Amino acid sequence: VTKASRFPGEFELIARYFAPLASEFPGAYGLLDDAAVITPSAGCDLVVKTDAIIAGVHFLPDDPADLVARKALRVNLSDLAAKGAQPIAYMLDLALPATIEEDWVAEFARGLATDQEEYRVHLIGGDTNSTPGPVTVAVMAFGEIATGRIIRRGGAQAGDRIFVSGTIGDATLGLRVLRGQMPHIDVAAAQFLAGRYRLPLPRATLGPRLVGLATAAIDVSDGLVADLRHICETSHLAAIIEAQRVPLSPAARVALASETDGLAAVLSGGDDYEILFTAPPSAADGLAEVSRLAGIPITAIGHMTTPSPGMPADVQVRDASGNLFALGREGWTHF
Amino acid sequence: VTKASRFPGEFELIARYFAPLASEFPGAYGLLDDAAVITPSAGCDLVVKTDAIIAGVHFLPDDPADLVARKALRVNLSDLAAKGAQPIAYMLDLALPATIEEDWVAEFARGLATDQEEYRVHLIGGDTNSTPGPVTVAVMAFGEIATGRIIRRGGAQAGDRIFVSGTIGDATLGLRVLRGQMPHIDVAAAQFLAGRYRLPLPRATLGPRLVGLATAAIDVSDGLVADLRHICETSHLAAIIEAQRVPLSPAARVALASETDGLAAVLSGGDDYEILFTAPPSAADGLAEVSRLAGIPITAIGHMTTPSPGMPADVQVRDASGNLFALGREGWTHF
Repeated sequence: VTKASRFPGEFELIARYFAPLASEFPGAYGLLDDAAVITPSAGCDLVVKTDAIIAGVHFLPDDPADLVARKALRVNLSDLAAKGAQPIAYMLDLALPATIEEDWVAEFARGLATDQEEYRVHLIGGDTNSTPGPVTVAVMAFGEIATGRIIRRGGAQAGDRIFVSGTIGDATLGLRVLRGQMPHIDVAAAQFLAGRYRLPLPRATLGPRLVGLATAAIDVSDGLVADLRHICETSHLAAIIEAQRVPLSPAARVALASETDGLAAVLSGGDDYEILFTAPPSAADGLAEVSRLAGIPITAIGHMTTPSPGMPADVQVRDASGNLFALGREGWTHF
Repeated sequence: VTKASRFPGEFELIARYFAPLASEFPGAYGLLDDAAVITPSAGCDLVVKTDAIIAGVHFLPDDPADLVARKALRVNLSDLAAKGAQPIAYMLDLALPATIEEDWVAEFARGLATDQEEYRVHLIGGDTNSTPGPVTVAVMAFGEIATGRIIRRGGAQAGDRIFVSGTIGDATLGLRVLRGQMPHIDVAAAQFLAGRYRLPLPRATLGPRLVGLATAAIDVSDGLVADLRHICETSHLAAIIEAQRVPLSPAARVALASETDGLAAVLSGGDDYEILFTAPPSAADGLAEVSRLAGIPITAIGHMTTPSPGMPADVQVRDASGNLFALGREGWTHF
């Protein structure tokens, strides 16, 4: 019996592992048709997003399959959350090398099932192929939001405060842990940080509650400063971050104590998947209530301002002593 | 100057080549936001489909980039057409190895631009990544159709006729040409067949006109018999194809004259991207009119029937002498 004959064919793979993930969404037709039907509720827009992750690029080749699946789904759900959309469904393009065993697929599907429960989404379509390359997982996520209410990047106003959910910097420090670059921190902190890198936590309970409060939003995937710069550019404003206000987890504080480039790591590290958003000072009470309802901390870290004459719409960081550091296009890696 | 610094970064690549493809669709936000908004017209469902193609698996690594782009888009548009949906928009996940030059991306985007014009669709989002593997292109296509009118696979009735658009077998013969396996056919026929393999022709002008006439439909991607079997299984019926009625192009007739496995190639070869559908005999006049309006031939090739007691819902092929050949699960490769 050869490997090829033991590994199920595409139809069998779909029937065994993926069709069960589609069983509760009528328009998915049990993955037995050429396409799916998805229609937003009356009075709603559909919000769509796609992001792919690739072994050796976005995750480690020996990462557990369930975590790979959940990461692929969650990076997309994070974008929907940042736009204020409620997730509904997703499609999946899976490219698998010949070295993948059926057990891997089973574990991958279990990961999806876990997160379908967690985020109340359904698989509605996809494509499975063999590839001579690495495992490649592309997800397209669908969400819905009241018509016209999507939270854009470009709506920030001068004087708006800048907020971020949760804590910043954990994922980039977690990657250092996984690479063996932080041997001196304690096991609990190491596990927490590595977990934050491996498995994003989309702020799905927070995002939809920001509709009507936030003027602009983005999820932190490229890094706090890089993503805030996207808000600046599309809103035609500058931003000032007060570095000492950037919320850090206890584990990140432990880790940063031994790092000489701590601030740079926190400000430029990616993969946090927190929501970075702007809101007017008048939204303060509403945000406190939203934070309580969602069970997710929200921290004010700075404010939006009109760019100085002749200066680009950009991000500046003020340190604890009140000094301003102008950031170049190259970002914080050269800080 | 290293290769890495000459090749544009992701944001530059998007701004230069992909944002122009999104400029006419308001909900794409110029590809400058985290997600896109797409909402079907009032009284319509959204129909969604994703398919990926991979270099060395679905196309030849040295295929021109514009053809790769167009094939990736068209295999998805073909599914929408088979479901009766009018295409609107698509998203794109592009994984590129380091060997890809900027010129390749420019040519790829030109291919997309050509087909956006041809099929009136717009790019509304996507993701670009580097990969240690081959070029991988995943497309998710969006179409719309009057609410509840999608043409499913499972709606065929006993007594329905089976129809197919265009001609069958060209693509699989074209692949043989490209592999150098058909050195004796003339250049014109070789070019026609190779072109049919390289660039599918989604029947976008035909599909939406089949709504209300066709009882079941699928696009021919796995092969005529394999795809008809999908209709059989979901419709719980058997099908009989009259082999001599399967429409062949003049080039395919030339090519088949020298092939010993001609019928098998035509019946089991994939990648035709024609629409295979069923319709009651009463639809004959309507179908003639639809064929004329779409400018696409439609040929009756058989009929649907109740499975014999104890027999599975399957496809049988009747040859020119009237003999029935029972087809096994293994398909026509063992014919």
